[in-house]
Amino acid sequence: MNEMSAVRIQGVGMTKFGKLLERGVADLGAEAALAAIRDAEVPLGDIEAAYVGHVFGGPVAGQRIMANIGISGIPVTNVENYCSSGSTALREASIAVGSGLYDVVLVVGVEKLYGRVSGGILPDDEDLEGALGLVMAAQYSMRFRLHSEKYGTTREQVAMVSVKNHRNSVHNPNSQYRKSFTLDEVLASRPIVEPAVNLLDACPIGDGAAAAVVVSERRARRYGGRPVTLRTVSLNSGRIQEEDADITFESITAEAGRLGYEASGVGPDQIDVAEVHDCFSMAEVLRVEGLGLCAPGEYGPLIERGHWDIGGKLPVNPSGGLLSKGHPLGATGVAQVAELTWQLRGDAGARQVEGARTGLAHCRGGTVYGTEGGSCTVAIVSN
Amino acid sequence: MNEMSAVRIQGVGMTKFGKLLERGVADLGAEAALAAIRDAEVPLGDIEAAYVGHVFGGPVAGQRIMANIGISGIPVTNVENYCSSGSTALREASIAVGSGLYDVVLVVGVEKLYGRVSGGILPDDEDLEGALGLVMAAQYSMRFRLHSEKYGTTREQVAMVSVKNHRNSVHNPNSQYRKSFTLDEVLASRPIVEPAVNLLDACPIGDGAAAAVVVSERRARRYGGRPVTLRTVSLNSGRIQEEDADITFESITAEAGRLGYEASGVGPDQIDVAEVHDCFSMAEVLRVEGLGLCAPGEYGPLIERGHWDIGGKLPVNPSGGLLSKGHPLGATGVAQVAELTWQLRGDAGARQVEGARTGLAHCRGGTVYGTEGGSCTVAIVSN
Repeated sequence: MNEMSAVRIQGVGMTKFGKLLERGVADLGAEAALAAIRDAEVPLGDIEAAYVGHVFGGPVAGQRIMANIGISGIPVTNVENYCSSGSTALREASIAVGSGLYDVVLVVGVEKLYGRVSGGILPDDEDLEGALGLVMAAQYSMRFRLHSEKYGTTREQVAMVSVKNHRNSVHNPNSQYRKSFTLDEVLASRPIVEPAVNLLDACPIGDGAAAAVVVSERRARRYGGRPVTLRTVSLNSGRIQEEDADITFESITAEAGRLGYEASGVGPDQIDVAEVHDCFSMAEVLRVEGLGLCAPGEYGPLIERGHWDIGGKLPVNPSGGLLSKGHPLGATGVAQVAELTWQLRGDAGARQVEGARTGLAHCRGGTVYGTEGGSCTVAIVSN
Repeated sequence: MNEMSAVRIQGVGMTKFGKLLERGVADLGAEAALAAIRDAEVPLGDIEAAYVGHVFGGPVAGQRIMANIGISGIPVTNVENYCSSGSTALREASIAVGSGLYDVVLVVGVEKLYGRVSGGILPDDEDLEGALGLVMAAQYSMRFRLHSEKYGTTREQVAMVSVKNHRNSVHNPNSQYRKSFTLDEVLASRPIVEPAVNLLDACPIGDGAAAAVVVSERRARRYGGRPVTLRTVSLNSGRIQEEDADITFESITAEAGRLGYEASGVGPDQIDVAEVHDCFSMAEVLRVEGLGLCAPGEYGPLIERGHWDIGGKLPVNPSGGLLSKGHPLGATGVAQVAELTWQLRGDAGARQVEGARTGLAHCRGGTVYGTEGGSCTVAIVSN
């Protein structure tokens, strides 16, 4: 396997995430796409291809989005990889541009969950874990128990993830929720699966879209705007844990991280800001440790010292993360990279991470144990 | 836009198409994948990435297929573009290999329609045409009426498409149907939408999968087997017809063809065998003319002279086509290229097109008029 040349993210945009009952997939995708194209300062006619990530958008959702913004006659590819659908679309775009096939490619991530799912996303027919009751929330509570036994991670430390991310999202106008909660409020919220998943430890369902314009280096020099460099989007699929492995350490995340660091030449010690897949509070612990942003077992003590806060040593999920910004599945991976772009440009307002020059975005979809439908991406961007 | 280097199709495989009630997506996909890998004579461990095309397979279907064949830890991307989902997966694989990123990539196209849809595929919520009653079968009957007025194409000529393709599929062990019908039988079969769509003029719903192993030229030299060259897979999306255009000529097909001919350096006069998207009898007329394989209006007179038969000047759908081989949506585009591979190798048995050296496969998904969710691919392979 060879590596391709880095590409530029010329512009980004997103809709507000939330319960948007009156909006459709084509409509949300078009809003985000137009925002990204405006931000990129790229003429509509320069767009040569589009990659559109979504899970439940229905057939040719990408083509319907393009129709809404008046684009016809270019190649459009719809991409699905569960919660990493949007970041996989970004990856395919970066391959198409990095290979020299195209100079300007539009990426859209979109999802409409309200009106389609209620309460939570149900297991598929073939999902043995779900059928046996081992739904997502149960998995994360089990993983907390083991992590706690092994490293002494406390319930309070895990709840602090939710406190931090909700606090960050107060400053994000695109967040589904913009309300702070105290540690006591998180711990007192309705239990979903004891001991580690209360209502405020779980991301909401939501609707929304995000978009990015990816351009080649040579073309970026011709455009204005303020592009950042997309150094790589690594993708790893399959087993989330090796069999018989310690489920307090997520192999698929560690491997996607390793691929991303190797392809970009950026090490975990060089990351200034990270957006990681905090579908549950405990998930942020597992992802940050899996990515090598601290040693296994260290996340808990470090959150007590403000290490992961905006203004801390390595801010994680300054956008509010999935827990508070929201998680319209296909939109998430693209929205993470939009946040990093704003952070690297210094445009993040009251949630700005000072001096951020290199950022990492991590997405993971799928299940934990027997079935092997995992998908995990790591994107690395820099100034 | 630059062109990439051609890639090789090292091996192909498919399941029988049909009503396979006891089979699942992961199971069908795995059978086709293993057949292609065996045919390619490539060790399982050499496969570096996979692209999996399907419409209704559900989230991370590709990962579930890989789990079934014992592959974990490689990038897997699920791709959807309605009836051209499989061919779009082939396209993304050819970009990833052609760019030098990978040397060996697995492509799977799969669909399970029985048990999921009944009677026909229903329009989406956002499909205005379907909501207004302009379902697929109605569109093709309308297009026949206009084509007939303009060029004198007869109902009998259109029914002969069904006769030809059913006759061809008698010799295809993977076909959903292997039964010949006379012209009178097609014309006497139950009307779906008069005048041009009877039951035997419409492709069936079906289940099945097809797969291909795509390798770089440098790697193909190292493997044995009998690879053919995949010169290009062009993709065009959006409007199927230009507004106010003559709907007897399909712009999206013509444009995908133009892109394919340009990228491959192969002209329509060099095609020895074609598999085209004959979802209805009339569709084959429109596709063959749209691709420039004859002039507009010439398809009808030529079918009377046996021009499109196996043994004719330019055999079209020797496999039996969608009409008789069947049409499990995501599988179709990959199965077409599998057929061309067998034809170019001389392995097609009683349906062999003698001396076939260059083949074209055409897939088209989406609707005709107001909505713009079209998708169209043209793949060109040669010895």
